[in-house]
Amino acid sequence: MKERNRQKSARIAASAGVARSLSAIGRRFVSVRAVSRALAAPLSAEDCALQSMSDASPVKWHLAHTTWFFETFVLAARFPEYAPFHPAFRMLFNSYYNAVGERHPRPRRGMLSRPSLEDIVSYRDHVDRQMAQLLDGAGLDEPTARIVELGIQHEQQHQELILTDVKHLLSLNPLKPAYQKHWPLTQVRSRNASWIPVPGGRHDIGHGGPGFCFDNETPRHSVWLQDFEIASHPVNHGDFLAFIDDGGYRRPELWLSAGWDAVCAGGWQAPLYWERIAGEWHTFTLHGMAPVEDHTPICHVSFFEAEAFARWAGARLPTEAEWEIAASKAPALGNFVESGALHPLALRDAPTPQAPAQAFGDVWEWTRSDYAPYPGFRPAEGAVGEYNGKFMSNQYVLRGGSCATPASHIRASYRNFFPADARWQFSGLRLTRDA
Amino acid sequence: MKERNRQKSARIAASAGVARSLSAIGRRFVSVRAVSRALAAPLSAEDCALQSMSDASPVKWHLAHTTWFFETFVLAARFPEYAPFHPAFRMLFNSYYNAVGERHPRPRRGMLSRPSLEDIVSYRDHVDRQMAQLLDGAGLDEPTARIVELGIQHEQQHQELILTDVKHLLSLNPLKPAYQKHWPLTQVRSRNASWIPVPGGRHDIGHGGPGFCFDNETPRHSVWLQDFEIASHPVNHGDFLAFIDDGGYRRPELWLSAGWDAVCAGGWQAPLYWERIAGEWHTFTLHGMAPVEDHTPICHVSFFEAEAFARWAGARLPTEAEWEIAASKAPALGNFVESGALHPLALRDAPTPQAPAQAFGDVWEWTRSDYAPYPGFRPAEGAVGEYNGKFMSNQYVLRGGSCATPASHIRASYRNFFPADARWQFSGLRLTRDA
Amino acid sequence: MKERNRQKSARIAASAGVARSLSAIGRRFVSVRAVSRALAAPLSAEDCALQSMSDASPVKWHLAHTTWFFETFVLAARFPEYAPFHPAFRMLFNSYYNAVGERHPRPRRGMLSRPSLEDIVSYRDHVDRQMAQLLDGAGLDEPTARIVELGIQHEQQHQELILTDVKHLLSLNPLKPAYQKHWPLTQVRSRNASWIPVPGGRHDIGHGGPGFCFDNETPRHSVWLQDFEIASHPVNHGDFLAFIDDGGYRRPELWLSAGWDAVCAGGWQAPLYWERIAGEWHTFTLHGMAPVEDHTPICHVSFFEAEAFARWAGARLPTEAEWEIAASKAPALGNFVESGALHPLALRDAPTPQAPAQAFGDVWEWTRSDYAPYPGFRPAEGAVGEYNGKFMSNQYVLRGGSCATPASHIRASYRNFFPADARWQFSGLRLTRDA
Amino acid sequence: MKERNRQKSARIAASAGVARSLSAIGRRFVSVRAVSRALAAPLSAEDCALQSMSDASPVKWHLAHTTWFFETFVLAARFPEYAPFHPAFRMLFNSYYNAVGERHPRPRRGMLSRPSLEDIVSYRDHVDRQMAQLLDGAGLDEPTARIVELGIQHEQQHQELILTDVKHLLSLNPLKPAYQKHWPLTQVRSRNASWIPVPGGRHDIGHGGPGFCFDNETPRHSVWLQDFEIASHPVNHGDFLAFIDDGGYRRPELWLSAGWDAVCAGGWQAPLYWERIAGEWHTFTLHGMAPVEDHTPICHVSFFEAEAFARWAGARLPTEAEWEIAASKAPALGNFVESGALHPLALRDAPTPQAPAQAFGDVWEWTRSDYAPYPGFRPAEGAVGEYNGKFMSNQYVLRGGSCATPASHIRASYRNFFPADARWQFSGLRLTRDA
Repeated sequence: MKERNRQKSARIAASAGVARSLSAIGRRFVSVRAVSRALAAPLSAEDCALQSMSDASPVKWHLAHTTWFFETFVLAARFPEYAPFHPAFRMLFNSYYNAVGERHPRPRRGMLSRPSLEDIVSYRDHVDRQMAQLLDGAGLDEPTARIVELGIQHEQQHQELILTDVKHLLSLNPLKPAYQKHWPLTQVRSRNASWIPVPGGRHDIGHGGPGFCFDNETPRHSVWLQDFEIASHPVNHGDFLAFIDDGGYRRPELWLSAGWDAVCAGGWQAPLYWERIAGEWHTFTLHGMAPVEDHTPICHVSFFEAEAFARWAGARLPTEAEWEIAASKAPALGNFVESGALHPLALRDAPTPQAPAQAFGDVWEWTRSDYAPYPGFRPAEGAVGEYNGKFMSNQYVLRGGSCATPASHIRASYRNFFPADARWQFSGLRLTRDA
Repeated sequence: MKERNRQKSARIAASAGVARSLSAIGRRFVSVRAVSRALAAPLSAEDCALQSMSDASPVKWHLAHTTWFFETFVLAARFPEYAPFHPAFRMLFNSYYNAVGERHPRPRRGMLSRPSLEDIVSYRDHVDRQMAQLLDGAGLDEPTARIVELGIQHEQQHQELILTDVKHLLSLNPLKPAYQKHWPLTQVRSRNASWIPVPGGRHDIGHGGPGFCFDNETPRHSVWLQDFEIASHPVNHGDFLAFIDDGGYRRPELWLSAGWDAVCAGGWQAPLYWERIAGEWHTFTLHGMAPVEDHTPICHVSFFEAEAFARWAGARLPTEAEWEIAASKAPALGNFVESGALHPLALRDAPTPQAPAQAFGDVWEWTRSDYAPYPGFRPAEGAVGEYNGKFMSNQYVLRGGSCATPASHIRASYRNFFPADARWQFSGLRLTRDA
Repeated sequence: MKERNRQKSARIAASAGVARSLSAIGRRFVSVRAVSRALAAPLSAEDCALQSMSDASPVKWHLAHTTWFFETFVLAARFPEYAPFHPAFRMLFNSYYNAVGERHPRPRRGMLSRPSLEDIVSYRDHVDRQMAQLLDGAGLDEPTARIVELGIQHEQQHQELILTDVKHLLSLNPLKPAYQKHWPLTQVRSRNASWIPVPGGRHDIGHGGPGFCFDNETPRHSVWLQDFEIASHPVNHGDFLAFIDDGGYRRPELWLSAGWDAVCAGGWQAPLYWERIAGEWHTFTLHGMAPVEDHTPICHVSFFEAEAFARWAGARLPTEAEWEIAASKAPALGNFVESGALHPLALRDAPTPQAPAQAFGDVWEWTRSDYAPYPGFRPAEGAVGEYNGKFMSNQYVLRGGSCATPASHIRASYRNFFPADARWQFSGLRLTRDA
Repeated sequence: MKERNRQKSARIAASAGVARSLSAIGRRFVSVRAVSRALAAPLSAEDCALQSMSDASPVKWHLAHTTWFFETFVLAARFPEYAPFHPAFRMLFNSYYNAVGERHPRPRRGMLSRPSLEDIVSYRDHVDRQMAQLLDGAGLDEPTARIVELGIQHEQQHQELILTDVKHLLSLNPLKPAYQKHWPLTQVRSRNASWIPVPGGRHDIGHGGPGFCFDNETPRHSVWLQDFEIASHPVNHGDFLAFIDDGGYRRPELWLSAGWDAVCAGGWQAPLYWERIAGEWHTFTLHGMAPVEDHTPICHVSFFEAEAFARWAGARLPTEAEWEIAASKAPALGNFVESGALHPLALRDAPTPQAPAQAFGDVWEWTRSDYAPYPGFRPAEGAVGEYNGKFMSNQYVLRGGSCATPASHIRASYRNFFPADARWQFSGLRLTRDA
């Protein structure tokens, strides 16, 4: 069968035109694909096979599923003669696309000792070779280019999940193994947050320009805001320690009702990954256990914790519209995955006093907005229409990217979303208040 | 102790001024309190004692808890010498007010064979007598009047729950007993829904006038809407049967992801209470099992079912702002609990063609809006601040009241809220689409 | 329909022979049936309607189910023209007889506000009248007499459950209501347990004589025992307090592995119903909360607690064969339900020093024997063959009856059985050791 | 630290005496330890890391835990200067010995990507080297020899679990990977079972001779049996297909009540691992999916299925005493793990017509006996006393070993035990009936 595949590959290559030089999108494809491999490099095959909870997936599965995306929506969809690398992978590595057919149940992704990590790497190589031929210098038709771009963005999203999911897995190991060992990350100095006023009235939000965006960022549309003030910096660990010390996790009046239920049911006494060692708070990081540092942005808090903290602080969370209007004043630069820190870095100054500092990178910032369709929203056509729209219930929007997000992946209109009790992402918050 | 209580009562009466004639609020108090008793009248002590699920409460508990509200927030809070009817009731009949202290766990409300229904009736009588003295003709200070008004509105909310909760309980009984027997309710004739256009732009929503409202309806504020069209009538049973016949409950592409999970987990094949008898769909009503009638508004559907139906119909749910703007054109009249129908009635004409028909009464209409604070929202002070604000997560807003809602309780700005999978309320929907 | 029923009743009466005087079995039928009613007398309709857990049933259900037994297995089975009191009752009040057809799910027995207690009483009256005609002086055929006798014994078993189930229900009520108020029961004086030696060898156990027994007590058969010693008295509350004070509930080495899991999962720190009030242990009784009395037999312990206590005491539980051989030396007299104590009474002397004291009545005594078929066991024919045999797995045998057992119901060969973690019966233990 | 360990090792070696030649027990130690490694040889590191359910453990864990046993109970217990390979392993690889201290929770054994399989192999090498020095020709004191022997037997038990646990894991993989590929195993010819009569009376069971046995096989003691007949062969797949075809899984009257609950809750329609492919029953084996062969012993049935089958066949399960008396007539030879078949082989003749065929090997045979202490049973002293006794509740005894059991591990008095619903062992049955 392998022989037969090779012949078909040749034909696909021929139909796509054989050329040496890669197109711009081709170069991006190659470099983004390489990042996924690089992120898995410090991990053993065993590290990559385990699934620590239903919300998380094995690293191996991420590597395969992102490949499946290109195989299914590009190669198989566009080349009738394309022979899939393995017929069972269509089902094994489908995440949630009902239109594509059956799928392996999510909580059982960790039951797959086979295919091995090595097999998955071969799968990636196979698909990458086919894609490279397709993406060479010769022109790519517009619909195909769009779906390839979607696949690249999709892979970047899973790169972040590779890090957050393996962090969760390693945290469960009593040996507390490090993904990498670069602690301490940087020298930490204090910054004081101040309030930046933003006038209300009619504003436009959503993606409007030319570059790539997900369907959920469209259409750009008007909203009406009241005057408000937003904090110059994210809430930091020191702020959050004060909340804990003030009984934050023991006072129901500070919490939403469902949040208080989550505190009680989960026995929450601090953010995820925190442990007291010899009387001092530590947290599990991708560098192993580390002391909690006051002047770095808080992370691994749920929407519920963010919302309760804001109430305690006499403020509130911003809506996603407020966040986007405020953050649009700053360039989308920050501590992203490329820095190698893999942890939020200390508070820093913003380029200008009117722009919020660290709105991009470090930690995703919870907003008070549920994840809902924008007015006039239309999901993309076909199976990829399942990408975003169908998740628009019972989740809250986060903005700005984190220390695990690829820099090229983020923008002011980008909408991330998680359930109100999710804590394993690099999620923090920024305060807002009525003017 | 009873003797001592009586003496104290006399003093309370004295301090409030003893008069024959009741104030306006006093007359409303008496009449609303009487309705609760009337709603329980067709039920036995056994009917009133059982709890069919955690979401529902025994009728007896509703009768006691609404009384507890007046005892706790009016009598005990304002009269230091007030002796509670029974010291344990403070804990037994507290619903969710952490500020008041301990409470009996919600899922165990059905474990209380004692106090008996008769004891609860005595409890009501005791509190009513004290309240009557307080509410006589002589002037009531403003803060007390406000809390009494809140208690009256609160009792009206529980009147609706008495009906929906006992309906759920009776539905579980294989004997399918009727709460009352008045079927068929009315002659049913067909009405066709048409689309009513509404121009976008800046609109104001929220409660602004003088009358009572809950804190969650404030402050009145501006929103920016796009042009839209809203259906002249609610979706009816005939429409929903077409959805079912078209495979509505078997096609994941029509559903939100969490909605499809609910369909699969709950084995949903039709709205709550539906059963096929001899090949024909029937539904459990407060009049017992009855055939499904095409031309009456659909009810007992979750947000998920409403949302999926709208997608199937090529439309969408309105936001709560859209609903409020459109419904404000119609008077808040309709089929409320006072009609005695206790079931949605057939589609009828609206007073004017520009106003949506049956926006009020018949069925609560799901909106696409999650239940969130309005810009500038401030919860009421004190324990009653727990009334609304703390539930503002993971719920969706419903508007317009139902056949189980007291007529005097509803208005265009009224916000009801339930989780996305709740089905035991009289909940339906009205379609909306972009202009 | 009622009229038609009456005519049929006349015919049934005729076919059974109409006579004034009741047979001996008829008199027992009437008196046992009356006891059930008497046990429910202190309870309200609400008390009788609630179900506190899956293991327990509402009192109303017990009253109906025992009636259903006679209706189904005597009246309907023997008289083709018998019209059931209500057609739905055949399903509603079937406990577990698959051969009889569908049944209402056990955990939903508490969802039946209707039929009311009053209806159930009418049901009992109806069936009792029919049965009385059948059981008059004229001869009853042998198979019918046998099934009537089984029904009488069956009703006695449910009489005990009426008490244990309503005790559990009342215990969940924060008001801690008493079923009756007769505390203190008696003056308590201390007795010291001593060891009674029993020689081993070949012994016969199981029911062998003429009177009634359940199929699970047969056939009488030989067993081979080693020499052993059995305690003269049951373990008492003082003994058990010493176990608790010695860390009994905190030391895994004292427990079976599954028992320790039960301790941890259930948070057990004492027998069921125990609460510390002002530093002193109290227990919930059918007389309300009462102090723990040292010199009364321990009760409301699971097999796991009994087994752990025995290990701590350097002894063990008897096998059911050992228990039966030892107890056969004593008459089956004791503190049964007829005493009205409804609680174990203080340790007393045995008639002779060789016989164990209080082997009968007070508390059921856990044995180390799982509930299994005796060699050569054959279940009864027909649906009543489901009475015992099908429960012979994952349960342990208890012997001797309790303070809630009717005196005429018990004998040395009687085998009661419950899962290892059941605690809501009046269950205690007696120590045994190898000679 | 490694250096320091090496020095200590030298000292241990010295204290144990350094010699070339191994003792007999030393040779057994080496060969049994080698088998564990051989069993894991066909598996990847990923295969060895995953845990498919709480009942099963990762292969890697088995390899580590068996090593931990020798480290903890031999090396650390006997040599105060022994430095453990890794301090955390004491907790990580403790299975259930409370006396040894904390342990990693069983359901989280599959969360340990580290230590890697390679690390575990190093751990084994380290401990094996230390043990080799201890077990050389020089004399071993008797208590140490006893605990080493226990460790060897313990390792053999885990060898069987390595196979059954990895079989369960691989079965969950939609790729249905084979552990090894040797199918078909053998030519299958039919054998008819006949009945072998066994006279009753006083018999002795339990281990009495000199060789090794577990504490649960003692003391040897007398039992009294009735006459019975036992089948010459185990029940085979053809027999079980007839049961299925006769509605075996749909007829509650054939089942124990708890068994029927298990059928309904688990949706059981056939033994574990069975699937219909193109209308024919297949089963997952360690050789991949294979057709069900009529003339091989049935396996992967629970106690409940075995018991129901026996009832359907008009027979019953033997008690463990009956099984032991009958099986003692045959030599303990059969299809064990050494055959390499790793699956039950076809029915074969017994050496003599009076002896049951295939009582040893092929499949464990469920008995009707719960797992309880023998009269006079005393657990071993110390932590290893937790080995058996504490599991003596709510489990049933299986006898005879299976195709996954080491041949040197089994004997007629050997008692295996599993809960009544366990199906992932190679468990089948043999019929018995009253004479």
